[in-house]
Amino acid sequence: MIIQPGELLAAINSPADLRKLNQEQLLQVSQELRQYIIDNVSIYGGHFGASLGVVELTVALHYIFNTPYDQLVWDVGHQAYGHKILTGRRDQFHTNRKYKGLSGFPKRKESEYDTFGVGHSSTSISAALGMAVASQYKGEQDRQHIAVIGDGAMTGGMAFEALNHAGVSNANLLVVLNDNCMSIDPNVGALKEYLTDITTSRTYNKLRDEVWNVLGKISKFGPNAQLIASKVESGIKSALLKQSNLFESLKFRYFGPIDGHDINHLTSVLNDLKGIPGPKILHCLTVKGKGFALAEKDQTKWHAPGTFDKITGEIYKVHHDTPQPPKYQDVFGHTMVELAQQNSKIMGVTPAMPSGCSLNIMMAAMPDRAFDVGIAEQHAVTFSAGLATQGLIPFCNIYSTFMQRGYDQVIHDVCLQDLNVVFCLDRAGFAGADGPTHHGNYDIAFMRCIPNMVVSAPMNEAELRNLMFTASQPDMGPFTIRYPRGEGVMPEWRTPLKPIAVGTGRMVQEGEEVAILSIGHIGNYAVEVCKNLKKENIKIGHYDMRFAKPLDEKLLHEICQKYDKIITLEDGCLPGGFGSAVLEFMADNQYTNPVKRLGIPDEIFEHGTQLELHRECGIDPVSIERTVRQWIMQPVSV
Amino acid sequence: MIIQPGELLAAINSPADLRKLNQEQLLQVSQELRQYIIDNVSIYGGHFGASLGVVELTVALHYIFNTPYDQLVWDVGHQAYGHKILTGRRDQFHTNRKYKGLSGFPKRKESEYDTFGVGHSSTSISAALGMAVASQYKGEQDRQHIAVIGDGAMTGGMAFEALNHAGVSNANLLVVLNDNCMSIDPNVGALKEYLTDITTSRTYNKLRDEVWNVLGKISKFGPNAQLIASKVESGIKSALLKQSNLFESLKFRYFGPIDGHDINHLTSVLNDLKGIPGPKILHCLTVKGKGFALAEKDQTKWHAPGTFDKITGEIYKVHHDTPQPPKYQDVFGHTMVELAQQNSKIMGVTPAMPSGCSLNIMMAAMPDRAFDVGIAEQHAVTFSAGLATQGLIPFCNIYSTFMQRGYDQVIHDVCLQDLNVVFCLDRAGFAGADGPTHHGNYDIAFMRCIPNMVVSAPMNEAELRNLMFTASQPDMGPFTIRYPRGEGVMPEWRTPLKPIAVGTGRMVQEGEEVAILSIGHIGNYAVEVCKNLKKENIKIGHYDMRFAKPLDEKLLHEICQKYDKIITLEDGCLPGGFGSAVLEFMADNQYTNPVKRLGIPDEIFEHGTQLELHRECGIDPVSIERTVRQWIMQPVSV
Repeated sequence: MIIQPGELLAAINSPADLRKLNQEQLLQVSQELRQYIIDNVSIYGGHFGASLGVVELTVALHYIFNTPYDQLVWDVGHQAYGHKILTGRRDQFHTNRKYKGLSGFPKRKESEYDTFGVGHSSTSISAALGMAVASQYKGEQDRQHIAVIGDGAMTGGMAFEALNHAGVSNANLLVVLNDNCMSIDPNVGALKEYLTDITTSRTYNKLRDEVWNVLGKISKFGPNAQLIASKVESGIKSALLKQSNLFESLKFRYFGPIDGHDINHLTSVLNDLKGIPGPKILHCLTVKGKGFALAEKDQTKWHAPGTFDKITGEIYKVHHDTPQPPKYQDVFGHTMVELAQQNSKIMGVTPAMPSGCSLNIMMAAMPDRAFDVGIAEQHAVTFSAGLATQGLIPFCNIYSTFMQRGYDQVIHDVCLQDLNVVFCLDRAGFAGADGPTHHGNYDIAFMRCIPNMVVSAPMNEAELRNLMFTASQPDMGPFTIRYPRGEGVMPEWRTPLKPIAVGTGRMVQEGEEVAILSIGHIGNYAVEVCKNLKKENIKIGHYDMRFAKPLDEKLLHEICQKYDKIITLEDGCLPGGFGSAVLEFMADNQYTNPVKRLGIPDEIFEHGTQLELHRECGIDPVSIERTVRQWIMQPVSV
Repeated sequence: MIIQPGELLAAINSPADLRKLNQEQLLQVSQELRQYIIDNVSIYGGHFGASLGVVELTVALHYIFNTPYDQLVWDVGHQAYGHKILTGRRDQFHTNRKYKGLSGFPKRKESEYDTFGVGHSSTSISAALGMAVASQYKGEQDRQHIAVIGDGAMTGGMAFEALNHAGVSNANLLVVLNDNCMSIDPNVGALKEYLTDITTSRTYNKLRDEVWNVLGKISKFGPNAQLIASKVESGIKSALLKQSNLFESLKFRYFGPIDGHDINHLTSVLNDLKGIPGPKILHCLTVKGKGFALAEKDQTKWHAPGTFDKITGEIYKVHHDTPQPPKYQDVFGHTMVELAQQNSKIMGVTPAMPSGCSLNIMMAAMPDRAFDVGIAEQHAVTFSAGLATQGLIPFCNIYSTFMQRGYDQVIHDVCLQDLNVVFCLDRAGFAGADGPTHHGNYDIAFMRCIPNMVVSAPMNEAELRNLMFTASQPDMGPFTIRYPRGEGVMPEWRTPLKPIAVGTGRMVQEGEEVAILSIGHIGNYAVEVCKNLKKENIKIGHYDMRFAKPLDEKLLHEICQKYDKIITLEDGCLPGGFGSAVLEFMADNQYTNPVKRLGIPDEIFEHGTQLELHRECGIDPVSIERTVRQWIMQPVSV
């Protein structure tokens, strides 16, 4: 079903069409665009609040700037739905985030208006600065470069690194700070408070009060006191904004704060800024979820609500008659509280994902022991290392894909010092609809090459709980537990906590000829395959290895001696992954059994459901079964 | 030879001894400490300027704070020589940076005064905050936590992430900003200019002028004009420092700037700060190289000058009668200019290592095409990606160990978009005396698991040049070239530039039975081994594979068919490294030749010369030869 756009929006097939409209029509276009987003997302799902919050900004930017010649970079990019709809993708928009459909984020391959692929936060200023410096070098003086970045993304360290560089360049760069006080969860940290200070004039008021304080009683200055008072006041105000603003400190020209929903004011300010060379920042105040009352009120819930009734606001949920398995993230969240109640050393840390990883459960139950440190993966890791030096045991929960951003800290601050930090990597393997920027495909490879690091993955809820319990034992050193987005397999998941000896796997099924060695949740596919084959009396072995490092060498010796052929199965990248670890063991021990490694091939995979993507890789149950059957029939060549 | 310390210093075996002295004696202790550093480093080498710059600060911190109960974290740590000497390591200090000797950086294993291992920059605030939060949780209200961080390190994004978190904590944290305007090279960026502004009162002066401007002619306010003037002025000054400072914006209490060489003032201020709870920052101005005139004058040269005559300042150089091979970094530096002269698309980027990686050659020759972006690896990568979107070809030079800090950006901004960014990873493999924090052991493993990435390593200068030339061809996509610290093997290195087909190796020597497959400079060890064996008429094969990804599959098929046994040789980590890539190829193609993988085992290796460390790993020429000989005599077991 294709949603009918409003009258003006229906005629906009590119920003050039938008620029044909009168200023007076922009309000209506904005309303139609907002409605179109509501209509679509309520039926097809996707990110919601962020795009509603920047409707006017999106219209204004494309109206004033000459896109795509002028280059617009959206930070993170889940707020770019309006941008997609205005730039020729309105009629495909219902395919947003679907397999083979539009990406949920800007993507260079998709449109020339998408100047830079995004997904992770805080990259936009660096990228836009690169473009601006390139324009400078090429002599394209008239070309504009705009980065739109949220106040949450602004706390990511690389945004600051980029400001530090941009401030002393004379590149033609406009940073639009989209200040809505939110990441997915409410934004945290000193910068957020500072922005609130500016917005509410708190900084200015404090400064003014202090000056008055020093001046003492103004009336003693005689008849001109009133005049002096107002002059001093306005002097301070203008000087303060010009000289002592945080962004002015970094040599940006600062403008704002302005109302990001006032389309007329926005276009007029943006038009003025076009004429001002060098680095500049426009501080826009917006409301996440703007124009949909429920979304304005509960912004975390409506960040990406799924499908819903756009009139009543009822979010559709699938109803089940029987108990369903929980999400892994919730098993993590509840188990954290359970473990922390028993062990006073356990602490929780998350970089801006309390609701995404369910650490919010512990944050509510034990606020002094669980920390949201903002969009700041690097800091999250080293802060955890600092806690660990004091004998505490921090569980640092970071999505697998975001762990990439704290990689140096894992090596340099945690593993070199052999500190007891537990990394819980949520969303490992394919992230699903979020696509390639969010797939957590590389963690086994990039974690297992670090000395002292344990790398594990649970096959089910009980194993997740037991691995967490194991990791919280004394002197475990660095410990990684990776698990996927979505549900496990155990409706009755509150199993008793039992330690697992580090580096031990388990036999799931004994068999003959072929053994599947799986790691993590994807082992459940192997169970399915084994069950199917058993119906025909084919009995292969299946082992849930649990640890990619250290490997269960004892078990591997048994397997290599017992079975002719070995299949390794993982939902991670094939180069350097779990399968390669098995090959290393075999080479070191001179085993020559043929090995088929099943996993994610060395390519970029787009978005889709996890099953769709597994199928593409040949690691869904049907493909695995086919591989096993073919191989059983094939004689060993050696 | 153990250097004789001065009289007071000789009696200091721990900070407790220091704290027994009178305030009046601190000046003398500082002088003795400075002299002791000069005496030692001139004879034994090491970092020089940084430690000289913080002599007074070091004395003051240990005098005022109750270390090790109070916890002191040195950022980067190459300025911590004075700290080591005062904390019980004076008499071992001559072993600094030597194999089995003291580490050149603070290290937890070495001393309880070293609260956190450092080496990479910008980690100290995160670590100290972790400690402070732990103390808070444990109820240790009296415990102090101090991070000493340079203005260069402050530009690293994670320092900002930590400030953002710390500002809203009420943790007992003191950040000492050691402002000397330097990284190894002069510091760059907006923050540096801002700090200069504060220091020279430029911000204050500008603000005052603007207020006067608004007030108009002051005399018109009558007889009290003079009084008003001074009142307004001091009011603004105090208000400005309290409210509108960049650090105050981030909710830190800001103090300073103060002279970091005035020991009496320093101790008095630190003493006052002890009583002030919450996050606070003390801005100290210091001079890198303080007290050694030449080092003050040329701070980059004297960052780590090697050994020198402490009277004349002559830096000792080994003289050779014949031309010597150049350093790889210089081959990189000169070749950049050569390539850029031929190809207007080529640009150079370095995060704060212009002299360390020799990009300074290009920065001098083509200042509009080569950029030092500050200590900002993340930004360096995404800025390069931005340049690449515009059709330019950036060469982003980052030490292998620092590449870890831009890892997410390599995946998310470069590889997912298949952009033509060339990563030149200097100091790959063992870094030598800098030790484990600086070893570049993991790059092959963590780079080759990323789709689209080419991973190469030259065996000599000509190959480095040719790989750079190859990488600069159109549409190459992401391209890594890793090479070690130190010299190559070709005194006549200015060879003509020739492209190398991506994913092709070359035969160095044809042989029988055993083939060594090497990647990179360490292949020269294999050459040595082959030469020795040849004297006894043992002729093994040797192949310089050049690419860890894509592998030369054609050549590998030939090798696997021709030779019984295969040895892979790399100066990188064994898990997931080049050897594993070869195993993957062999498994996928059902070759069963036994393989011995030689490389860096899965352990932390300390500091030492590269050869000492290679010997420890069994990858020096003698060990390799022994391995080959043993293996030739051993029958293939299959």
